[in-house]
Amino acid sequence: MTSADNGVNVQALLDARQALKDAPEAAQFTWRASSRWDNGVHSTTTIEKFFGLGQEQTHKAVSTFPSDHPAVFAAEDNGITPIEYLLVGLAGCLTAGVASVAQNRGIQLRSVEAQVEGQHDIRGILGADSDVRNGYEGIKVTFNIDADASRQEIEALVAQSQKRSAVFDALTNPTDVTVEVA
Amino acid sequence: MTSADNGVNVQALLDARQALKDAPEAAQFTWRASSRWDNGVHSTTTIEKFFGLGQEQTHKAVSTFPSDHPAVFAAEDNGITPIEYLLVGLAGCLTAGVASVAQNRGIQLRSVEAQVEGQHDIRGILGADSDVRNGYEGIKVTFNIDADASRQEIEALVAQSQKRSAVFDALTNPTDVTVEVA
Repeated sequence: MTSADNGVNVQALLDARQALKDAPEAAQFTWRASSRWDNGVHSTTTIEKFFGLGQEQTHKAVSTFPSDHPAVFAAEDNGITPIEYLLVGLAGCLTAGVASVAQNRGIQLRSVEAQVEGQHDIRGILGADSDVRNGYEGIKVTFNIDADASRQEIEALVAQSQKRSAVFDALTNPTDVTVEVA
Repeated sequence: MTSADNGVNVQALLDARQALKDAPEAAQFTWRASSRWDNGVHSTTTIEKFFGLGQEQTHKAVSTFPSDHPAVFAAEDNGITPIEYLLVGLAGCLTAGVASVAQNRGIQLRSVEAQVEGQHDIRGILGADSDVRNGYEGIKVTFNIDADASRQEIEALVAQSQKRSAVFDALTNPTDVTVEVA
């Protein structure tokens, strides 16, 4: 029995793993977002409901997120750019993984910070050079972690988090995205 | 000369495209996010500065974003899940593209709404089945657009937005992501 308490209910996650092995249909989640154009390249996206464990679910609060482009793109900067939201998701996913794995391994965390940088050649989206991709050229995440653990153990936490990260997978491997007009 | 006004300064974007063809170094942007673990799988990510056009840039406001997991994951639901942030970015990027392309084509938009759904088999992240990926199985975006244009023209707007979308590319094609401990 470990005394480490990182605030993660690991037993519930282990129980869920076991339960969903026998009930794969309950593991099918649908995450949803609704967006509405404001003006220019400014839009607002709302997240509230999702589907999982066989039924409709609702977050305890409605969340809204503005997207815009900064002044250097001749826009009003009413929110971060859409591509920056990918960095938010990546940081949040890997950090949650670090906390969960640390809990499972009985390692007490004191602080976890991450710096995320995405390299982006904007000639792609501007159509200035067809050899330049639209998305990130590459992304680098650097963790600073203070924990009751050796450097080797901390590096292993981060490696295991990466291995089980939904967002890391979504960015490093292709996903089928279909875009339609209703 | 078109009278359409969607609030996008297309001339500035066309000028930037031309200018950056001759100055590729100015087109190298670095987008940045900093995250801090709160407790459990709850963390907060902050976005303020980025690099582009050869110098440090600052958004006009600091933005902070909470990530957490919902109660069905035995967490506190203090914010949306990390993987939902990918849907926010996708919706914002495609919508900005629709507005920009419409402006360039002289099409007046009245409203643009998008519903985004990501299918996610959570057996992957739980380690319940090694044949299931961690990320989305697939994502579907459905636009509802009211504009002074035919259905064919509206479909062409959406197709061109997708073709130039940073986030669409980042999700549908692999990106190199390195994760390190400082």
